[in-house]
Amino acid sequence: MITLLNDLRQIVGAPHVLTHEDPATDLSAWERDWRQRAHGRALAVVRPGSTAEVAAVVKACAAAGASIVPQGGNTGLVVGSVPDDSGTQVVLSLTRLNAVRDIDGANLTMTVEAGCVLQTLQETAEKAGFLFPLSLAAEGSCTIGGNLAANAGGTQVVRYGNARELCLGLEVVTAQGEVWHGLTGLRKDNTGYDLRDLFIGSEGTLGIITAATMKLYPLPAATLTAWAAVPSLETAVALLGLAHQHLGAGLTGFEVMGQFALSLVAKHFPQQRVPLWEDSPYCVLLENSDSESEAHARAQFERLLETAFENGVVSDAVVAESLQQAHQLWHIRESIPLAQAEEGLNIKHDISIPVSSIPAFCAETDALLEREIPGVRLVNFGHLGDGNLHYNVQAPADGDPKAFLREQEARVNTLVFDAVARFEGSISAEHGIGSLKVDKLPHYKDPVALALMRSIKQALDPQNLLNPGRVLTR
Amino acid sequence: MITLLNDLRQIVGAPHVLTHEDPATDLSAWERDWRQRAHGRALAVVRPGSTAEVAAVVKACAAAGASIVPQGGNTGLVVGSVPDDSGTQVVLSLTRLNAVRDIDGANLTMTVEAGCVLQTLQETAEKAGFLFPLSLAAEGSCTIGGNLAANAGGTQVVRYGNARELCLGLEVVTAQGEVWHGLTGLRKDNTGYDLRDLFIGSEGTLGIITAATMKLYPLPAATLTAWAAVPSLETAVALLGLAHQHLGAGLTGFEVMGQFALSLVAKHFPQQRVPLWEDSPYCVLLENSDSESEAHARAQFERLLETAFENGVVSDAVVAESLQQAHQLWHIRESIPLAQAEEGLNIKHDISIPVSSIPAFCAETDALLEREIPGVRLVNFGHLGDGNLHYNVQAPADGDPKAFLREQEARVNTLVFDAVARFEGSISAEHGIGSLKVDKLPHYKDPVALALMRSIKQALDPQNLLNPGRVLTR
Repeated sequence: MITLLNDLRQIVGAPHVLTHEDPATDLSAWERDWRQRAHGRALAVVRPGSTAEVAAVVKACAAAGASIVPQGGNTGLVVGSVPDDSGTQVVLSLTRLNAVRDIDGANLTMTVEAGCVLQTLQETAEKAGFLFPLSLAAEGSCTIGGNLAANAGGTQVVRYGNARELCLGLEVVTAQGEVWHGLTGLRKDNTGYDLRDLFIGSEGTLGIITAATMKLYPLPAATLTAWAAVPSLETAVALLGLAHQHLGAGLTGFEVMGQFALSLVAKHFPQQRVPLWEDSPYCVLLENSDSESEAHARAQFERLLETAFENGVVSDAVVAESLQQAHQLWHIRESIPLAQAEEGLNIKHDISIPVSSIPAFCAETDALLEREIPGVRLVNFGHLGDGNLHYNVQAPADGDPKAFLREQEARVNTLVFDAVARFEGSISAEHGIGSLKVDKLPHYKDPVALALMRSIKQALDPQNLLNPGRVLTR
Repeated sequence: MITLLNDLRQIVGAPHVLTHEDPATDLSAWERDWRQRAHGRALAVVRPGSTAEVAAVVKACAAAGASIVPQGGNTGLVVGSVPDDSGTQVVLSLTRLNAVRDIDGANLTMTVEAGCVLQTLQETAEKAGFLFPLSLAAEGSCTIGGNLAANAGGTQVVRYGNARELCLGLEVVTAQGEVWHGLTGLRKDNTGYDLRDLFIGSEGTLGIITAATMKLYPLPAATLTAWAAVPSLETAVALLGLAHQHLGAGLTGFEVMGQFALSLVAKHFPQQRVPLWEDSPYCVLLENSDSESEAHARAQFERLLETAFENGVVSDAVVAESLQQAHQLWHIRESIPLAQAEEGLNIKHDISIPVSSIPAFCAETDALLEREIPGVRLVNFGHLGDGNLHYNVQAPADGDPKAFLREQEARVNTLVFDAVARFEGSISAEHGIGSLKVDKLPHYKDPVALALMRSIKQALDPQNLLNPGRVLTR
């Protein structure tokens, strides 16, 4: 291992190889995951400054048989980017690869290195007069390489898709330390297998993404936000259908929030003044992005909401009058996780269900959980436009949250995941598998799919060097 | 082989196994490719009626070591769906698997079997009140399974993407005759590697697609078509930028047509009355799909064209006044291939280039070809919105088209493809590789990508049973 460390220092320069040899060096930022569920111990944290250095690092690790944990902003939610506790793994941090290599306005593309922070990309695009629509809670610190490795979702998926749909080309270092030069800004390229999408979402287990060519969109002329109270989840789904019909691709956000989730925001952040929640089981946040004007966006929203009232799909609604009001409404939505935390630990799920089945899924699963755990409280909210719910389970009001988590998590997960399976949903909509769900996957994934995944892993990384134990166990 | 034929008859029923044993049986429809470039000889044409039968056929072929050529509508343009002339391959025709299994309006999805004809799907969706946007010349006879295997493109890609972007889930029979049950209507599902996109575009070499869950869209309230004369390709690209900005996602079509291409339509189909072509090097066809109304779509078009006039980006333009006029304009665009054929055989290319580089690519490549082959005529047209050109090369006016094709095709291909490579384009934008370009691929594809593709083929189809010799040679 001493030889390996020397090799790594040769490749990236001694200041960019961090180890525990120096007792003053604190590697926690790289060794501990975002939600503090795991704290591993790395042999070294290596910070290459170029794609060629990444390739050389991989070759050196392969030669030494040391496995590699690629890492971006380390904001993942499934323990997929921190080392295990063996002290033998190399954390390969990509944050020094942070150049915007090119913006091609006429082609609506931007070529960026893996370590670029998502928010920087949003800002860079906007400065150039374009929209880069990927948007999620960790955008201030997550990196585009991590977003692609995890196929991140977020709030704009209903219109623009996941990270996958925003990517046209990749540069990837393979498990053999070769560089695939697959950066392309082409919308159409049928010359062989789709390697791009194989690496996207593979969580660093098949190759290391070092750069990407991403799509840009024209900046909308206006973006408006509305907040609607709906009598039921069924009507929330009906409102989604009406919104698709009325707004077309203008519909860029459609979030649903359950009454209990909003009550927690009202309780813990009373200054936020949550509208319309008290008389409605669910509220919906809608966003309309318009290529014409604010007046046009407003007229469209009004027509949509009028129709929705007439059909009994919406019981009350407000349209934000200013950008500030719009931000306030989004802020309420984004405060739900914080309000939950104030209420005490809970059991989190990131599931997806076909939109049409969401009402039945929730009715059945809510009832099941209430029967199994009397008094249980459900913090149900999420991206209804893409069928993605953060269906979180909170201890009864008089219960001890920590004990609840400890004693009920496994059982609740099984109850929820089994229900997800019955409704043909996914046990991980946007967060991925990592280590956290790797033991669950074989139970819920089609066995032929699992066998295909294993064949591919074996073919591309026969030494099992890249992020071993994530996505797939051996 | 007699045992295999008996097994196949057992599986699908004797009437669905067609062979040359009966001299009255004509297998040309399955053995000859669409453009009549190849006419192979099959051991048998097998027409299973269910996914289970497809799986059983694959197992029987694998046991006998007989390779399989999956086939849909057999309308591909790169000789990818007909047998070789060995008389040993089994053509597996999927046309009997033609059920629409499900339409889920609230989820905006449709689950269909591989053998469904594309136009049937468009009509089925429309009857249910939705748009299925994939649209291409062969839509009356191509199948969705073939569209997915080839990742078909067409005229709506600028808004809706290729076949790949329209697919959410697949059912696939593997090379081992196992069934992957991957039909899902989920917009978000991060539970492992993206097998779906690996099978899409793999041209039947990795697995056999038997069914798919496809996205539906709301039907637009109005679709308008405009025809604009532009002073140059540079201004055509500038017009595209303006159209993105003004129409946003309303821009559903953006086709460019060179003057010589339009002159051929005017010459051979004078009844079509091609507008504005005589004084312009290029014309552009634009389509605006609006979720609001025809009046709104028209006002938007007018604003766009006004701005374009003011900026000198457009020299003249017409907006279709009726659906009939719109069809006439599209019909002119679609008549270019037929007009070319009237003029005589030519050398066809299906290339893509980053949109921003298309003017420079055409200037350089036009000049190169004119220098190398004095008097050569360029039929340049295509889907400029996605950077996809059908850059076709026609014999000089006084030349013999057949001799030209015979003597110049290889040389012209090399000149054009080398130019494509210099501009970071693709030698196959939407048609695929098949047999036709399989020898070209190693020269133009990144060697690491090729090695990855070979590893994947080896891992998923180690016996090389599925469509051997397509996409990859051994």
